Amino acid sequence: MTRGFYIGRFQPYHNGHQQVIDEIIAEVDELVIGIGSADRSHTERNPFTAGERIMMITKSLAHIDEIVTYVVPIEDINRNSVWVSHLESMSPRFDVAYSNNPLVIQLFEESGTEVRQSPMFDREVLKGSVIRKKMVKGEEWRPLLPEPVVETIEEIDGIERIQRVGDTDSVPLG
Amino acid sequence: MTRGFYIGRFQPYHNGHQQVIDEIIAEVDELVIGIGSADRSHTERNPFTAGERIMMITKSLAHIDEIVTYVVPIEDINRNSVWVSHLESMSPRFDVAYSNNPLVIQLFEESGTEVRQSPMFDREVLKGSVIRKKMVKGEEWRPLLPEPVVETIEEIDGIERIQRVGDTDSVPLG
Amino acid sequence: MTRGFYIGRFQPYHNGHQQVIDEIIAEVDELVIGIGSADRSHTERNPFTAGERIMMITKSLAHIDEIVTYVVPIEDINRNSVWVSHLESMSPRFDVAYSNNPLVIQLFEESGTEVRQSPMFDREVLKGSVIRKKMVKGEEWRPLLPEPVVETIEEIDGIERIQRVGDTDSVPLG
Amino acid sequence: MTRGFYIGRFQPYHNGHQQVIDEIIAEVDELVIGIGSADRSHTERNPFTAGERIMMITKSLAHIDEIVTYVVPIEDINRNSVWVSHLESMSPRFDVAYSNNPLVIQLFEESGTEVRQSPMFDREVLKGSVIRKKMVKGEEWRPLLPEPVVETIEEIDGIERIQRVGDTDSVPLG
Amino acid sequence: MTRGFYIGRFQPYHNGHQQVIDEIIAEVDELVIGIGSADRSHTERNPFTAGERIMMITKSLAHIDEIVTYVVPIEDINRNSVWVSHLESMSPRFDVAYSNNPLVIQLFEESGTEVRQSPMFDREVLKGSVIRKKMVKGEEWRPLLPEPVVETIEEIDGIERIQRVGDTDSVPLG
Amino acid sequence: MTRGFYIGRFQPYHNGHQQVIDEIIAEVDELVIGIGSADRSHTERNPFTAGERIMMITKSLAHIDEIVTYVVPIEDINRNSVWVSHLESMSPRFDVAYSNNPLVIQLFEESGTEVRQSPMFDREVLKGSVIRKKMVKGEEWRPLLPEPVVETIEEIDGIERIQRVGDTDSVPLG
Repeated sequence: MTRGFYIGRFQPYHNGHQQVIDEIIAEVDELVIGIGSADRSHTERNPFTAGERIMMITKSLAHIDEIVTYVVPIEDINRNSVWVSHLESMSPRFDVAYSNNPLVIQLFEESGTEVRQSPMFDREVLKGSVIRKKMVKGEEWRPLLPEPVVETIEEIDGIERIQRVGDTDSVPLG
Repeated sequence: MTRGFYIGRFQPYHNGHQQVIDEIIAEVDELVIGIGSADRSHTERNPFTAGERIMMITKSLAHIDEIVTYVVPIEDINRNSVWVSHLESMSPRFDVAYSNNPLVIQLFEESGTEVRQSPMFDREVLKGSVIRKKMVKGEEWRPLLPEPVVETIEEIDGIERIQRVGDTDSVPLG
Repeated sequence: MTRGFYIGRFQPYHNGHQQVIDEIIAEVDELVIGIGSADRSHTERNPFTAGERIMMITKSLAHIDEIVTYVVPIEDINRNSVWVSHLESMSPRFDVAYSNNPLVIQLFEESGTEVRQSPMFDREVLKGSVIRKKMVKGEEWRPLLPEPVVETIEEIDGIERIQRVGDTDSVPLG
Repeated sequence: MTRGFYIGRFQPYHNGHQQVIDEIIAEVDELVIGIGSADRSHTERNPFTAGERIMMITKSLAHIDEIVTYVVPIEDINRNSVWVSHLESMSPRFDVAYSNNPLVIQLFEESGTEVRQSPMFDREVLKGSVIRKKMVKGEEWRPLLPEPVVETIEEIDGIERIQRVGDTDSVPLG
Repeated sequence: MTRGFYIGRFQPYHNGHQQVIDEIIAEVDELVIGIGSADRSHTERNPFTAGERIMMITKSLAHIDEIVTYVVPIEDINRNSVWVSHLESMSPRFDVAYSNNPLVIQLFEESGTEVRQSPMFDREVLKGSVIRKKMVKGEEWRPLLPEPVVETIEEIDGIERIQRVGDTDSVPLG
Repeated sequence: MTRGFYIGRFQPYHNGHQQVIDEIIAEVDELVIGIGSADRSHTERNPFTAGERIMMITKSLAHIDEIVTYVVPIEDINRNSVWVSHLESMSPRFDVAYSNNPLVIQLFEESGTEVRQSPMFDREVLKGSVIRKKMVKGEEWRPLLPEPVVETIEEIDGIERIQRVGDTDSVPLG
């Protein structure tokens, strides 16, 4: 039995993430999806709460029945040297981690955990920062996200939120 | 569509919790199970990590297909007055909370959230503190837990852990 | 110009506190009232929020016009060795501190701040723990508090709150 | 009875803030002035401690006797989703919040609190960042602040402080 | 080259600790002494600051020239599952840990670190809690501590401190 | 007896630091070297853990036998107004602090501690940020560091670490 761990911030969960998971599914029996910076929300970089992201992901994975999936929020701990231990305590035990982030890879390798580069798809467009910018500017963002994510964002008035906090003046009490 | 929220520490998840969930299922369309004190572990009162508890619960709910379930760890925030907001940010939105804990009920009510007493079953025995005491003393604890929980605890050598940290001297660096 | 600092938790603010302040007023030109453990609430030991306590005290001091008063919440910092610096950063500068708490006296003295024993009045009855116990038991508590405190507590349903969280079972998620 | 809440960092409290409060006074019976980022000090963006800001504001409001005012420091909590709850626990209950900050407006609206745009006066000059820059450069800043604020800053050698920490090299241990 | 790690709170450092270190010296080439709960002070259980404890230990080890020693304060992190990582990030890398505390042993073993029971000497008397009680009661404590520790405690008026905070009433703001 | 305190981040400890300490030695009887931002690691600005930096410094000071030295990690506390108290609680008492950082100088002076400008040597090259840049680019860095620091960095694969986390993309989960 192999359990994988795939970490991201998922701001928002998009078609690129979905494709990555479709690939990973072939390699593992169970998959934990870790939602990083779970305590962050209402900023341009992290507009959605952990709860909203859990819903986006769970609904988007509803069709997967080949393997067991877990969706786990991971709060920031602000000490790189204990981040892997923190994450491990919040997750079912896993055998291999998936990430393309150099710091994440470095931290997992130093802790002795196997880490694999996750595949990437169309990174010019399928990238959180690009999609959030489209949302702020009022450009078309819906085709880049799984249908249940679009529904979640509309239900919570997510575009209005990101447009407001994305204003150049919107540092808290700035 | 009604979404419920059921909060506990689940140290460990036992047959009483399972029965409560079986009851709640009839009342809601989706259910979030919140794991409180998610950052606590390795003490007599909180022996198991959040990750271990996620596994116990997810495996025990595998047979439920009537409704969608979410399992969400909730770290302590140590300020009662913001606890409800904290919990709400970590969870998909819910309509009704289930708890028997007086403080939890008070906090939800003050925040304007509907809260229902969760049903209780055989509280003399099906109670975390009673079950943990049996584990420490080496008494029979297996029949009180769902089978997947027993397996998880055995896989992680959970009894040895609780027996060690349950020693009267085991305050850290005591 | 002499500015005094009087620190307490004020759970709740009672006639004993009021008498202490009446005495201190004769010795100083301005007085800062520091509300300790400002981040605590909804427990038997700390039932009221900082905001509720600010209101209790400000209303009870409304008649004082001899001196300028400040009411300042002080959150716990959980490191005794920096507590005085923390408190000083939250308060207008002061010349003398008033307290009867041995730890508070010790910390101020080590930091080189003058500290005076605050006078005490009828400590058998005019004591937070005694008054809270009366509230929990449903005994008469009103005569022990200034009128504006009674009004504040009734407005927020404070007795119901302390009776609930004061139950023996009301540890969070116990 | 209407109680308002006006939040800012007040680094420093200036004539623009004073004018805003003069306007708000006509709309409310009581006003809470919340000092944001109360735990920050000794940086270019946040030069003054909460205690110093409390003194600036309380002295500047001494002439107001139409309404009751409260001055309350609010420490940062670094989780946008619980910031409103945190602030509410530190403040007497209020009916309407005043702010022009888009994030603050968004958070209050999501929590169901009425929020009004506060009026703004001569924002080219009466703006904290502009005034702090003048202080760092040694330009004339006194006419932009109420007299008691000028006195407080001079008493604490505030200009020397901001000029030092405002140096380009003054990140801590840079 | 073998480096050992010996962890304790050292409240205060006493002859029992000194004897343990004399034994460990024979087994390692370098030794790290970790001072646990470094952020605690001014309580009956943790009367001395980390800085005071560093001085006690460094002076008491001055005669050791067989091996290199390091004295490292370790702040509490309040999450058992990351405590070993936290400690490792604060210490030079080590090969073996020494402790008799069941929780410490459990945490090191789960993390895969070799841990050895440290030898114990005359635990009826040479025990922090026993020595602190003697200090509070004014009984003879000097013979139980290395000479440099006695000097440090006298220099800082340590007995007066522990007697004050050791009063039954000395919970902060109690 | 005069004890000095010299604070830096020492990312990494280099020949400039070594020369500063050689100068300070002539002025004091004992010297505490405080390692700031001890909880930071694995970033371009703070690549090395506190434990690694303790080792770099202790080994580099091994030849000093004129005076007693202490090497003490100081975690960030993120409140400038309590930073001096925090640092003092972690360190043996000292009489004079050495620093060139404007904020550090300001904080010590406000707290009444004597602070001296530390001498500086060849700041064009002997500067942490310059040396780290060389490491990232693969330029020659060894001649700028004491021999034991070079050994420590090589033992922990430090160059690989800083090159990875120094990538422009390496914000955590970016």
